[in-house]
Amino acid sequence: MSIDKFFNPKSVAIIGASNNSAKVGYAVLNNIIQGGYNGKIYPINPKATEILGKKAYPSVEDVPDNIDLAVIIIPAKFVPNVMEQCGRKKITAVIVISAGFKEIGVEGAELEKKLVSICKEYGIRMLGPNVLGLTSYGSKTLLNATFAPRAPLKGSIAFISQSGAMLTSILDWSLQEGIGFSKFISLGNKADLTSVDFVEALSKDPETKVILLYLENIVNGEKFLDVAESSEKPIVILKSGTSSAGAKAASSHTGALAGADIAYEMAFKQTGVIRADDMQSLFDYAIALSNQPIPNGKGVAIITNAGGPGIICTDAVEKNDLRVAGFLPETINKLRGVLPAAAAVLNPVDVLGDADSDRYEIALKTCLEDEHVHMAIILMSPQAMTEFVETSNKVVKIAPNFKDKPIVTAYMGGKSVEEGAEILSKANIPCYDFPERGVRALKGLSLYSDFQDELKAKEPPAEFDSIDRAKVDRIFKSVRDDNRLVLLEPEAVNIASAYGIPVPKVLLTTSADEAVSVADKFGYPVVMKICSPQILHKSDIGGVVIRIKNAQEVRNTYKTIMNIVTRAMPTAQIYGIEVQEMVDIPNFKEIIIGMNRDPQFGPLIMTGLGGIYVNFLQDVAFRLNHKGLSKKEAFKMVSETKVYSLLKGARGEPPSDIDSLVDVICRVGRLCKDYPIINELDVNPLFVFEKGKKSVALDVKITLSIGDEQK
Amino acid sequence: MSIDKFFNPKSVAIIGASNNSAKVGYAVLNNIIQGGYNGKIYPINPKATEILGKKAYPSVEDVPDNIDLAVIIIPAKFVPNVMEQCGRKKITAVIVISAGFKEIGVEGAELEKKLVSICKEYGIRMLGPNVLGLTSYGSKTLLNATFAPRAPLKGSIAFISQSGAMLTSILDWSLQEGIGFSKFISLGNKADLTSVDFVEALSKDPETKVILLYLENIVNGEKFLDVAESSEKPIVILKSGTSSAGAKAASSHTGALAGADIAYEMAFKQTGVIRADDMQSLFDYAIALSNQPIPNGKGVAIITNAGGPGIICTDAVEKNDLRVAGFLPETINKLRGVLPAAAAVLNPVDVLGDADSDRYEIALKTCLEDEHVHMAIILMSPQAMTEFVETSNKVVKIAPNFKDKPIVTAYMGGKSVEEGAEILSKANIPCYDFPERGVRALKGLSLYSDFQDELKAKEPPAEFDSIDRAKVDRIFKSVRDDNRLVLLEPEAVNIASAYGIPVPKVLLTTSADEAVSVADKFGYPVVMKICSPQILHKSDIGGVVIRIKNAQEVRNTYKTIMNIVTRAMPTAQIYGIEVQEMVDIPNFKEIIIGMNRDPQFGPLIMTGLGGIYVNFLQDVAFRLNHKGLSKKEAFKMVSETKVYSLLKGARGEPPSDIDSLVDVICRVGRLCKDYPIINELDVNPLFVFEKGKKSVALDVKITLSIGDEQK
Repeated sequence: MSIDKFFNPKSVAIIGASNNSAKVGYAVLNNIIQGGYNGKIYPINPKATEILGKKAYPSVEDVPDNIDLAVIIIPAKFVPNVMEQCGRKKITAVIVISAGFKEIGVEGAELEKKLVSICKEYGIRMLGPNVLGLTSYGSKTLLNATFAPRAPLKGSIAFISQSGAMLTSILDWSLQEGIGFSKFISLGNKADLTSVDFVEALSKDPETKVILLYLENIVNGEKFLDVAESSEKPIVILKSGTSSAGAKAASSHTGALAGADIAYEMAFKQTGVIRADDMQSLFDYAIALSNQPIPNGKGVAIITNAGGPGIICTDAVEKNDLRVAGFLPETINKLRGVLPAAAAVLNPVDVLGDADSDRYEIALKTCLEDEHVHMAIILMSPQAMTEFVETSNKVVKIAPNFKDKPIVTAYMGGKSVEEGAEILSKANIPCYDFPERGVRALKGLSLYSDFQDELKAKEPPAEFDSIDRAKVDRIFKSVRDDNRLVLLEPEAVNIASAYGIPVPKVLLTTSADEAVSVADKFGYPVVMKICSPQILHKSDIGGVVIRIKNAQEVRNTYKTIMNIVTRAMPTAQIYGIEVQEMVDIPNFKEIIIGMNRDPQFGPLIMTGLGGIYVNFLQDVAFRLNHKGLSKKEAFKMVSETKVYSLLKGARGEPPSDIDSLVDVICRVGRLCKDYPIINELDVNPLFVFEKGKKSVALDVKITLSIGDEQK
Repeated sequence: MSIDKFFNPKSVAIIGASNNSAKVGYAVLNNIIQGGYNGKIYPINPKATEILGKKAYPSVEDVPDNIDLAVIIIPAKFVPNVMEQCGRKKITAVIVISAGFKEIGVEGAELEKKLVSICKEYGIRMLGPNVLGLTSYGSKTLLNATFAPRAPLKGSIAFISQSGAMLTSILDWSLQEGIGFSKFISLGNKADLTSVDFVEALSKDPETKVILLYLENIVNGEKFLDVAESSEKPIVILKSGTSSAGAKAASSHTGALAGADIAYEMAFKQTGVIRADDMQSLFDYAIALSNQPIPNGKGVAIITNAGGPGIICTDAVEKNDLRVAGFLPETINKLRGVLPAAAAVLNPVDVLGDADSDRYEIALKTCLEDEHVHMAIILMSPQAMTEFVETSNKVVKIAPNFKDKPIVTAYMGGKSVEEGAEILSKANIPCYDFPERGVRALKGLSLYSDFQDELKAKEPPAEFDSIDRAKVDRIFKSVRDDNRLVLLEPEAVNIASAYGIPVPKVLLTTSADEAVSVADKFGYPVVMKICSPQILHKSDIGGVVIRIKNAQEVRNTYKTIMNIVTRAMPTAQIYGIEVQEMVDIPNFKEIIIGMNRDPQFGPLIMTGLGGIYVNFLQDVAFRLNHKGLSKKEAFKMVSETKVYSLLKGARGEPPSDIDSLVDVICRVGRLCKDYPIINELDVNPLFVFEKGKKSVALDVKITLSIGDEQK
């Protein structure tokens, strides 16, 4: 079954329909009838034979025909029973408006679980419980199955809200603003269907041009990433609860640096979702995206009848990462020819305070003909000669001639501008009260355009030969057999090495003879370190010696370390002494690569300035990694950090081996994707040497999650 | 004379008054009459005997009485002549509405200069030219001396705008929104009176509660700082043109890191000016500041009838640096007693979807009685039982009982909320459409409260004994005599030293013998450096040798450097070789202290992470320094940088000598204040050692401005 039964049902049963106008069951049936629904309507109520002029049935099972959609508005405790009736009747789409489930506590949660298991048993998809309902407008259907006191206007915006109150507020407000909807969906408790299911369906809905969501959380994050990325429609989300997660316990650098909101931020950024900061921008974006074309660049033409608003608009254009277009010489010449001498013909174009509609018309047309101009904003302030109505009419006439160049307007004033603004709105040209909102709308269009470009240029995740999974499997098995969650350094290093991450050669030795033979093999100098699960701060107790130059020194050091350590920590379990190749290449940059597993969205990869000050300087970039990172994406991460300017080679220093850094980032991503058991991982520092000289992970820390799931 | 003649004139002459309703001179006179001005009105027009029922005079000199204010609306070329008439008539306040001055080019600029010199000659203060006019409402005066088609409403907001179009737009908009003004002032070309003069006067104006400005620039920056800081009223500014300055040529790190806007940002921050990001927030702040009390803390109580808006509001509270108040136990108990069981009694308080006005009333009252609550926001979404009107009435009744606790509201909806919102607005309780705007208004109140606290706790600039100005004067004189703008290193170091900034000992020597005797005096090891105004990158050509251990090495090094340099740069003018004490103390942090002179606001001091990567990591804080920095303020600068967490002693490292750093910042500030001739200064790096071990400036660069002004 598909969500289409919710959007375009041929027949609807209203279970709990009522003749009592104070009841929700009356409101829903009445809204369906008044809304002009053209399918079959079956009120279900065992105590009535007719409701609002429609024949009523005691139960859905008594209805002689097929039923596509059932809407349930009866006390919570009776819902499971009628759900089973729906199941037997082969109804696959049910909206449970009734409240009294998870939101009221333990007892309600139990009842809600029962609904979910009935859904599973009968193959029912359920919206709710505890919802305002659903409105679906389209060429085939006019269904207003909510108990809201008024119906939304018809339009091309689909609005999905996790908060019912937000829907009633927006509904009330939208009627005044003249904003119309294709779908109006209340998510309620999301016991079965979630925002992700609806986004997936709306992406293909011919009635919908833009998908708007108000969300407090996303429960199936990895599916969301897939659905959002492949959506054929722009998605705009207001995600609240950014501050609530608060102090999240985290032992890795990545965890400490990733705020509560960073996974959502990346989820939206990586899938091209436009994030709104507040309710107003949610709709400012939506109106532009549903009515205006997507621009092919970032060049904005500003046409104004006063200097001040032009300057404010210029600021807003730059703040929003758009560009005040540089005009072609012929544009400037033409403007000079048609505008008065005192007019400003560079961008912003100031048509002067006494500009009539003709002057606006010729200026707009001339600007839009310039190939450097990808979109336009028209600013008008009420001055003596200002013709709001006539100018609006001319803008409406010009717009269709420039099919890929969006136009927005900001009419600054009150009564004087109203009539003109209405003409524009009716012609689907957004009109805002202040320039900043108009520019924000253009930014929304530009963000969507950027994402479309990125999607086209997207590369597949990096692929690697010669990954030694068997080795990694063995190490994880031994760690789990040991009942540990924190890996020892040689274990972590060996896992990194199995994934092709360059590490210094290291071997655990259990005698001085063995240490000498390993050191001989590695070549001198070497580093020697005590290895014990109890000793975390090895240097502090003299458990690390560097720059050991020959076999004799190795032999002596082995004894010295053992003596010191057994005296300092007599109860520690000593695994032996690691002999490690000494990395002694000059000119490196210290970089961190980390991973923190987000409960919703999976592995969150971080990179940036590493070393001991990583938490203080916080110069890092993040990416979600649910499909593995491409080299291109990993490079983008690097280029988002400030340390990138050093890696490129600043102040006459040679450039660093960024290719090698990018490679390690991708390998870390692959490792964390392959092994969901890895909870946190830090490579810090990764020494990145001069270009061509590779990099090496000096320290690798891995901790496992308590659960044991492994792909 | 004072600005009061503009605000409360007892008589007004309208020079260029006209009986022709198409003329600006008609509009101004008509506005003055229609506005209810109760002083004497003298139309001046040589061709009329009566205009709009008032006796007209050929010239101001023909008026038999005193004239307090003249408004000039005649063609530009005739303005100087009538200005002189005004001067002779002892009129000290003149508004020149006429355009055709600086804004039209060179010729107009000349004419404008003539006006300014007439002003000086006769002691006239002039508003304009090229203005919309001025409106002044108060208990003594109702003067609407503009040519705008409509009059603003009376209220307590003073609005000053550098853009006339912005005024006409805001005027039109304000009539619809019901926003009233005490003063409405168009600044025009600012040939004489500027925003600073009006802010100074409005600070004492009994009719004004808040001062609003739209500005594109500030011309007399240092006076602005004094006036803004001592203002008795909150000041809110929308400053546009933040992006326009673009790439400013700068040779110092401070100049490169200080964006075009940073001086304005600091000017506002340091003087308690609230900066608005856009027109909407300008007025959101203004309405709250003009109507609501200033809170004594940051605790916000949120009262809502739905969860979603409560979460959005919580996010906004945290984003705006306010705090969701933690209630006292008795508050929670009381709320639990009076609200239904399902209500949320922690903050946000959710009074539930079926809440009537009584429930809002008791919740609001209970919250405001809590000493942890310093302000409240009421959120309402239209649900079945929601009583907008009755709730508004109750809020209006409660508010006066909590005289120091501001209340704002967000009524989310359209038609449903209108009547309720109007009741609130009439009672001066701000009502917004979305929660975010309400929280922003609370933030404005809180920012003003913070600034009042800061002002009380402000400390005087640091004072220093034993500054050797004579030495500095001598060095600058010799540099100027030498026709240089860039100081040699020993000169810069000696200036720093004269101001008590710790520097390594350094002396210029002109022979190997002299070098040895200096090195013997300093103690070994020493550093030796070539000294030549032509050699900027000394190390690159072998002109610097460090760690010289004894007299023989000094003697050899002297010869070696001289040989190398004369071969490498045979035409360079060699002053000799500097012998410098070698700083060899372990454990230091590299810090930068810099100064870049802002053309408007004077010395802009910077500090932060120093060393060779300063431009890449950009971890710096700024302050304007027109009066000298206090130690407290300098410490605050340090604490705003990320490197502060390292200076405090991170990861077991000993803390650094922050006192010494603060001292050097203040000394740099004092030096730059004492010597306006210093254009740019960088101390980089300053080595800051462990606590108690002081700091030392390893490198000091000073450049002078071309001008020769010196206090």
